Amino acid sequence: MQRVTVVKIGGNVIDNEALLAQFLDDFNALPGAKILIHGGGAIASKISKGLGIEVTMHQGRRVTDARTLEVVMMTYAGLIGKRIVAALQSRGCNALGMSGADGNLLKAKRREANPIDWCFVGDVIPDSVNTELLVSLLNQGIVPVVCALTHDGEGSMLNTNADTMASTLAVAISKEFKSRLLYCFEKRGVLMDADDDDSVIPLINRENYAQLLGQGVVNGGMIPKLDNAFAALESGVEEVVIKHAENLGNDTQTLIIL
Amino acid sequence: MQRVTVVKIGGNVIDNEALLAQFLDDFNALPGAKILIHGGGAIASKISKGLGIEVTMHQGRRVTDARTLEVVMMTYAGLIGKRIVAALQSRGCNALGMSGADGNLLKAKRREANPIDWCFVGDVIPDSVNTELLVSLLNQGIVPVVCALTHDGEGSMLNTNADTMASTLAVAISKEFKSRLLYCFEKRGVLMDADDDDSVIPLINRENYAQLLGQGVVNGGMIPKLDNAFAALESGVEEVVIKHAENLGNDTQTLIIL
Repeated sequence: MQRVTVVKIGGNVIDNEALLAQFLDDFNALPGAKILIHGGGAIASKISKGLGIEVTMHQGRRVTDARTLEVVMMTYAGLIGKRIVAALQSRGCNALGMSGADGNLLKAKRREANPIDWCFVGDVIPDSVNTELLVSLLNQGIVPVVCALTHDGEGSMLNTNADTMASTLAVAISKEFKSRLLYCFEKRGVLMDADDDDSVIPLINRENYAQLLGQGVVNGGMIPKLDNAFAALESGVEEVVIKHAENLGNDTQTLIIL
Repeated sequence: MQRVTVVKIGGNVIDNEALLAQFLDDFNALPGAKILIHGGGAIASKISKGLGIEVTMHQGRRVTDARTLEVVMMTYAGLIGKRIVAALQSRGCNALGMSGADGNLLKAKRREANPIDWCFVGDVIPDSVNTELLVSLLNQGIVPVVCALTHDGEGSMLNTNADTMASTLAVAISKEFKSRLLYCFEKRGVLMDADDDDSVIPLINRENYAQLLGQGVVNGGMIPKLDNAFAALESGVEEVVIKHAENLGNDTQTLIIL
């Protein structure tokens, strides 16, 4: 059975031209079938400001009014998506840029206006994945490059969390292939000591996760990340990896298994 | 043998919300497999101006420097492409937005800097079409929505003429399917009298084309359009149609056959 790696990159890669180039070299060298998920980093905010559109963040997420939705459509699907696709094509990697709307890959539900109105922000509908299309593309040697946009099936695009899109696609594809989820993170992995970048915990499984939680080593924003990782593993994903994009080509990472 | 219709729309449809909605209804109702090709209309110039980037046109074509390339990537592939894809999805049409870079659909060669430097403008390489991917998508019931961007295979996107992309894809697909090329035009077809919108010539073939040229009925910018239409027919396309987007659902048109 073929193995598929779903790799998610964030702003620290997208906003750094040299790191992105090195990452794309390493991504291209990854064996087996693969899918890349990306957001838009700081570029969406820069374009918003350039067009005189106010940027409103709430709990680290972008409040997406109608004009901001246009900006994220332009930035994620247009500028960054096509930049990555053209760069991968030049490396001999047959990338194809997609949003959740394209080929009806993934639908989302508009988030409730509670406690604030997120406007065009959507949460993925897990069982809406067009797995058939994904399998067909992967079997043709195509590498889907998926941006953090979905659609509601009623004509609207929706700004959607890239981490969740990555795990949703990895779970869906695990019905057909061995599936591996790789989150590129701003650190080299989950750290034993937050102040020591060299203290990467190489392996987390259910047993030591309970210990790490008890000891307070895993805390704050890392808890939902790891909870999501275990949820993906319980839904069929074989392994989850958290590492820095600059280490894609080597083994400095945290491997998470059941 | 299945029939594929390749439809090209221009700025007069893209820039007019009501006309675009009606056009997409009619496009969705077209029988058989289909491909939609679009440019960016006036929206790219509006975004350029919003970002303080000067718009330079030469012979009706956009001179595409590095910043303008970013604008057309954002506008064509991002804003307009995803708007059309989401709208078609809401109509039950399984649209998938693509540029020439996606899935290596279509390559172009950067245009020579003569008499002016067009910068990131590319002319299509006809035999570079990834017909295998196109056939696979069409056989899965997917409707490719292709924007007027290609790539050079060396990492750069290129701004490319949408009319030529449409005829190139129609010719390539004619090796596998019956292929029909439909240009949406600002007029209802080729007119007998340029001042009379009701004087549409219903049929042009090689015989009456020579006559129409001799009489001066076909002149100016219409000559290269019709020459390209005949070139497509000679390369395997079954018929070429020129009509207004508002008439997609009816027979007001000029049909061009050999």
